[in-house]
This record gives sequence, structure tokens and C-alpha cells, in this order.
Amino acid sequence: MAKTAKTTREPAAAAKKAAHPVSPLAPKAFPKLPPLAGVRLGTVAAGVRYRQRTDVLLALLAPGTQVAGVFTTSKTASAPVLWCRDKLKGAKNGETSARVLVVNSGNANAFTGQAGLEGVKAIAAEAAAVAGCRPAEVFLASTGVIGEPLPDHKITKVLAAVAADSAAGNWRAAADAIMTTDTYPKAATATARIDGVKVTINGIAKGSGMIAPDMATMLSFVFTDAAIPSAVLQECLAAGVGPSFNAITVDSDTSTSDTLLLFATGKGGRHDAVTKASDARLRDFRKALDAVLLDLALQVVRDGEGAQKLIRIDVTGAESDAAAKRIGLTIANSPLVKTAVAGNDANWGRIVMAVGKSGEAADRDRLKIAFGGHVVAEKGMRAAGYNEKTATKAVSGREVQIAVDIGLGKGAARVWTCDLTHGYIDINGSYRS
Amino acid sequence: MAKTAKTTREPAAAAKKAAHPVSPLAPKAFPKLPPLAGVRLGTVAAGVRYRQRTDVLLALLAPGTQVAGVFTTSKTASAPVLWCRDKLKGAKNGETSARVLVVNSGNANAFTGQAGLEGVKAIAAEAAAVAGCRPAEVFLASTGVIGEPLPDHKITKVLAAVAADSAAGNWRAAADAIMTTDTYPKAATATARIDGVKVTINGIAKGSGMIAPDMATMLSFVFTDAAIPSAVLQECLAAGVGPSFNAITVDSDTSTSDTLLLFATGKGGRHDAVTKASDARLRDFRKALDAVLLDLALQVVRDGEGAQKLIRIDVTGAESDAAAKRIGLTIANSPLVKTAVAGNDANWGRIVMAVGKSGEAADRDRLKIAFGGHVVAEKGMRAAGYNEKTATKAVSGREVQIAVDIGLGKGAARVWTCDLTHGYIDINGSYRS
Repeated sequence: MAKTAKTTREPAAAAKKAAHPVSPLAPKAFPKLPPLAGVRLGTVAAGVRYRQRTDVLLALLAPGTQVAGVFTTSKTASAPVLWCRDKLKGAKNGETSARVLVVNSGNANAFTGQAGLEGVKAIAAEAAAVAGCRPAEVFLASTGVIGEPLPDHKITKVLAAVAADSAAGNWRAAADAIMTTDTYPKAATATARIDGVKVTINGIAKGSGMIAPDMATMLSFVFTDAAIPSAVLQECLAAGVGPSFNAITVDSDTSTSDTLLLFATGKGGRHDAVTKASDARLRDFRKALDAVLLDLALQVVRDGEGAQKLIRIDVTGAESDAAAKRIGLTIANSPLVKTAVAGNDANWGRIVMAVGKSGEAADRDRLKIAFGGHVVAEKGMRAAGYNEKTATKAVSGREVQIAVDIGLGKGAARVWTCDLTHGYIDINGSYRS
Repeated sequence: MAKTAKTTREPAAAAKKAAHPVSPLAPKAFPKLPPLAGVRLGTVAAGVRYRQRTDVLLALLAPGTQVAGVFTTSKTASAPVLWCRDKLKGAKNGETSARVLVVNSGNANAFTGQAGLEGVKAIAAEAAAVAGCRPAEVFLASTGVIGEPLPDHKITKVLAAVAADSAAGNWRAAADAIMTTDTYPKAATATARIDGVKVTINGIAKGSGMIAPDMATMLSFVFTDAAIPSAVLQECLAAGVGPSFNAITVDSDTSTSDTLLLFATGKGGRHDAVTKASDARLRDFRKALDAVLLDLALQVVRDGEGAQKLIRIDVTGAESDAAAKRIGLTIANSPLVKTAVAGNDANWGRIVMAVGKSGEAADRDRLKIAFGGHVVAEKGMRAAGYNEKTATKAVSGREVQIAVDIGLGKGAARVWTCDLTHGYIDINGSYRS
């Protein structure tokens, strides 16, 4: 059945050559993710679009696995997003079962009309047959070019073989298989205790361009061996996504395909049932989940197309947290701010401009701006202690911190972006990604 | 008084070398603007920031000149913007008198605190003394770097000399003197009839980056010899700016300094008084004014930083005109759309993405997208008659037309932008403009 496809169990770094140099902001090494009880992973080079790159990920999940998800807010969402949303709506007593995850890279199956939906159905049917479950227990995601018909037969015909080949602990191969313009695979892990019982959280992500809340353009799949029902998972996920994936932007463009799924297999150490997200016994788990989500989100920004610098923007003193976030994202999305940082230019005037255009309340004379802790502007003008050398140094490193105090209230937010460089133009202006 | 300053009467092309090559989208030649009764122009290289470039424009206006203006919506507007707004508020019986316009390039006098306001006052006082009028009849504009203290003494000390040197017909020199990162001077002219009497409209503009509604980041000064009171001028201007300067974007960034002033000297052919903008006798004048505003606005887009292509986006079938405009601007501001066009890539999937993220109502299956008249997507998928060669050709020229029909209502809008190229990064990432 899978004669034309080559399954992969080992790290696929060599097989998955990135078209662009690895981001200088990439983590030093791929993290060590332990196997996770109830999750088996398999990948394959199915030739959906790329050649000699793994492009299909299959995750087999133990019976009883619960799932939660958040998706793009786009009005032109992809067929797999519509499918997943629909399945999550069908929760019974707060539980939604998931048995298989199928992800392909190279084609987003977005704006592909009825054929796109038929493709999703065909893949779900084949995956269900392979795993011995209902199609409604199959979750799907696709990433890649928009508007091209998905060659779903290339995927369906390899599923049985890749399932047979799947194993625990294939995290690196899984992270590789979902990459598109990513220059490195992304993963994060953490452990936590629920009622004294150790549980593990493993996550992978892909994303590099078309990244903006809500959500950042990306796929991310997070797995835990804890036993938590869907409704509780959903609450934890919705809260965790705010300061992580919904606080990053690369280029202000919102994808049709953003998908973040959280699976809980319940096959780790046994712990008592948890039925409320507010349960104090979940505190440690939620903290660990938040850390994994933030880690993955920042890896996406660090791989922003053409990124040479990671920029953190802290906004304080706004009228509300929402206002602070809007101001922060306005700064983070400003091409003029991003190009200035790219050029090591402490051009704080462009921060003033961005605050001014955000639409939120601002008062020129209360505004305070600092680069790397060095106050560059306050009281309606350049700061008395302004030092060009210090300011320039603060924007010249790989990580840049911009702090803006609006001086009007107590609203605060932190967002991240990257600089805008020639690399972005190269990647997006030279071929169809 | 102006010993260090060199006044300029002749076209200053040689003296005002642009730092970047002239945009390939520039008009073939600077238009021939006739002298305008009641307007004398003078320019000078005052050394505000640039060297060996004219950077101050003085316009002397006949007694009785009326003025109207529209300005940036930024919450951190520059000192000259605050000054002009304040003076326009002081209209008596719908009339506001203007006798002098002083413009400098190289420094925006924005976020310069109390010193910035003092600088504006000092320049207005000196200009008033030179022209023999009240400071309230002096209008000012500044463009250039934000946050640097304005060396207003460099301007005040040259005003008498440049006034003495001013003359009718210095339009090219005037357009040169207000340039910053512009690669060519911008001007437009038209004639119209009011009650059978011929009147002339001459306008100049500058702008290239930090261009987004409302308003595009730019300065523009339009003059007519018609006799029209301020209140009527204001109504004509406010209406004319919607489909012109408020329908263009280069980089989505809103300036702190955007200023569009319209002056009417009343020194042309005599015509009866017009007291309402809706007066049918103004129809021809308003049409000509709209044409001048659109011509100038498009010249700004054509000089968008790094621009290699002019992109026109027509949105139809939206729920309202406002919705259509928002969708159009979302497409126009999308870095992924702009880089695709730069790369001659008919990547209509990115148009789908932009429509989806605009926040306005959209229905995937009713959406229709065409490049240069060639329908590329409809009915929720790639169009049946899609032809890659035709589509690619449509996005490969200097002028690209994108049409998007939302299929939901009768709202329509037309907006313009330019592509996003390496030139934009070069200009904004390599020095403080």
C-alpha cells in the first residue's frame, strides 16, 4: 500500500533540508522529550507537495484520550479546521474522544471547496479504519499553500503503513514532518504533579510566517498522559493561549489553518478525577502547560521568516489589559519599528508613532519608553538621560526588550515579535510557500 | 540674516539628490504648474538636518486667503499639527485667514515636548513679522525624524531672506524642499470653472513611508485662486480626502505629522460668492479638486519606499462601503500579499487569507477574486478557468489590479498600495530617516 512512501522513524533532519538557513535565534538543541504513555507517532514522506521531505504525521492515541482545541478566527478557515471544530462541538458530558491525529504539510487544504471537505472525510475514514475507531475520533490539520486541491489519496494510501511503523518517542520526526518554511523543528516538554502523581506534557509546533493572533499562524499539538476530561482541558487551553500563542506576531497576517490541539491520554500515573479547571490540584499542571505553550510560541517567533532578533514588548499603564495588548501588538506589527530594530537603530520615534496609531488612549506627556531598561523618552520628549550609545546597544543584540508605559492606568500586556529583514522578502517574494 | 543659507529659485533637482534611485513608478516628468495669483513661493537650504538640500519652504499668501485642513488621527501628533488644528478652530463666520505657510523637512518636530511648541511659536512669530500678519495666520508643517529637538533658530533666521527671494511659479522648488525619503517631487494641477470663471488648482505633496490612512503619512499643500470661504473649503476637502489620501497605504504605519492644507487666495478671475459646498456652481471645482488630490495621493504610493509596483484593489459586494474599505486595506497592508506581488507570484490564497482576517463578514463560497480581470478563485475554490500563466502575467507588470467580490452586499471601495521589496528594508533598516 505504501510502496511509494518512505516511512521514517529516526530523526529526519537530513531528509528535511530547510530551504533557508536555520534561524540564528533557534534553540541550541532539540529538547529531549520522553515517550508519553498512550501516544505513538509515525511519519512519512508522502509527496503531498515537497520531495524527499516527511510531510505526514500520524499520532495514534490510546482509547479514552480526551481532546481540546483552539483555532484560527479567520472567516475563510480551512477544511480541517472546520472538521475539528465540528467534532469538538459534539462533546458528551464534557468529554470528546480522540484516537488519531493526522497532519500534513505542503498543502493547507484551505479554499478548496467541496473537494477539500471530501478530502478531509476520506482521510478521516481511512485513519479510523486503520486505528479501529469512529471517523469522529480522528482530528486533522493541514499546513502549506492555500487554494491548491489536496491530493488526499497520497495521504490515505500511506496511513496503514505509517501506523504499522509508529512508535512511542518519535517526537523529533513528528516535529520535522509538520514543518513548512520553518528552519528548525519545535518541541517542548514539562512535568507536573496532579495530586502528587507525576504527569508529563509534550508539545510540538510549526510556524514561521503568516503569524498573528488570534491565533498565530501555526499548528501545535500538545499531549499529556494526565487524565483530564475535554471540558477541563478546553478551559486550561483557552486560558493558556492568551499570553502565549495569542501574544506573538511575525507579520500581522492571520492564517486560515491555525490549529492548537491538546490531547490527554490518561495513561500515565493514576490520579483522582479532576472535573473543574479551577481545582487547586490542577495548579501545577496548568503552570507546566502554560510554560510549554509559551516555549512553543516563542520558538515560532524565533523562527519568524527572516528573523534575526527576538523582540519583547512590555506595555504597562494602559487603560486596560486589552488596551495594553492592542498597543503592544500595534508596535509589534509596525514595519517601521521592525525594520528599525533590524538595522540596530534605536528609533524610539517609531514607537511613539505606533502608540499614537493604536487607537487606544494615550497622552504624549505621560508616555515613557525604554530600550533594554534605558529610558529613551518621557515627559513628551527625549529623556534627559538619553544616551545614543546605550540605546543603540540595547537594540543591537539578538534579544531586544522594549518597555512602554502609557501612564494612564493599570493595564499591562507582554507580546513578542521579530525584526523585519531582507530574509522575509526573500522567503515570501521569491516562491510560493 | 541668511548668510549661511542659500536660497533657491530654480528647480533644485541637482541640489536635492535622493539617497535612493528614483522609483520606477514615478511620472515621466514634473507637471507644468502655472503661477497662481496670490501665492509666492521661496525655498532655502537651512541645514535643519540634511546637507546641501533645500529643506524649508515659505509660501506667502495674499491677504484674504482662506484655509482648510485635515490632519493625522495619531494620538501623538506633532507640534505643528496641534498648532494648525488650533488655528482652524478659531474660524469666524466660517472664515479662517492664512497669510503664510512654513514647511520644513528633516525634522518632524514631533514628541519634542514644550520645546517643540516653543519652536512652532518662534517660527510663527518670525513668519508673521516677515509677512506683516498675525501669528495665527501662519500655518506650519514639519516632516522628518521624530523626537529630535527642532533647531528652530535655523529656520527663523532664514525666513526674511527667503521671503525676499520668493516668487510666483516656484512649484518645482517647493515640491523639492519638502521631500524626505521621497525619490521624486510630487505635484499636480487642474483648472475648473466656477460660474463660468476659470480657476486653477495647484498642489504639491511629499510622502513615501509611514503611509497609512487616516491619513497617509504625508504633507500636501493645495492652492487655488478661487474665492471660497474656509467652511466651504473644509467640506470639499473632507469629502475629497476619502477616496484619495485616505485610500492609500504603503506600510500601514500612521504618521504623527500628516497634514493636508487647502488654501484659496481669491485672487483669480472674479466670481460670485459661494457659501455652500453643495452649491451646483462648485461641482466642476470639486471634481477638479478631487482629481488633484487623487493624483497626488497616487504619486505618494508610486513613491512608496522600495515600491516597484502600484497595486489597485477593488472590493465590491461587501456589506457596506466601510466594510469594503476595511477589507481592501487589510489586503493592501498584508505583508504576504505585498511580497507575493513583488515576486510576480499570483498567490491568490493570500488574498483569501487577508479577506478572512479583516474582521468583516465574508463567505468562502461567495468570494470571487480576479487578477487583472482574470478570475482566479470563486465558489470556494480555484476558478475552473484558472490559468497560471495568465494569472502570473497579471501580477508581473508595473501596475497590478486585484478585484475581490465578497458576494454579500453592495458595499464597494477602491484602495491603492505598493509591493513590499528589499528596497523597503534597505531604506528603513539601514539609517534613521
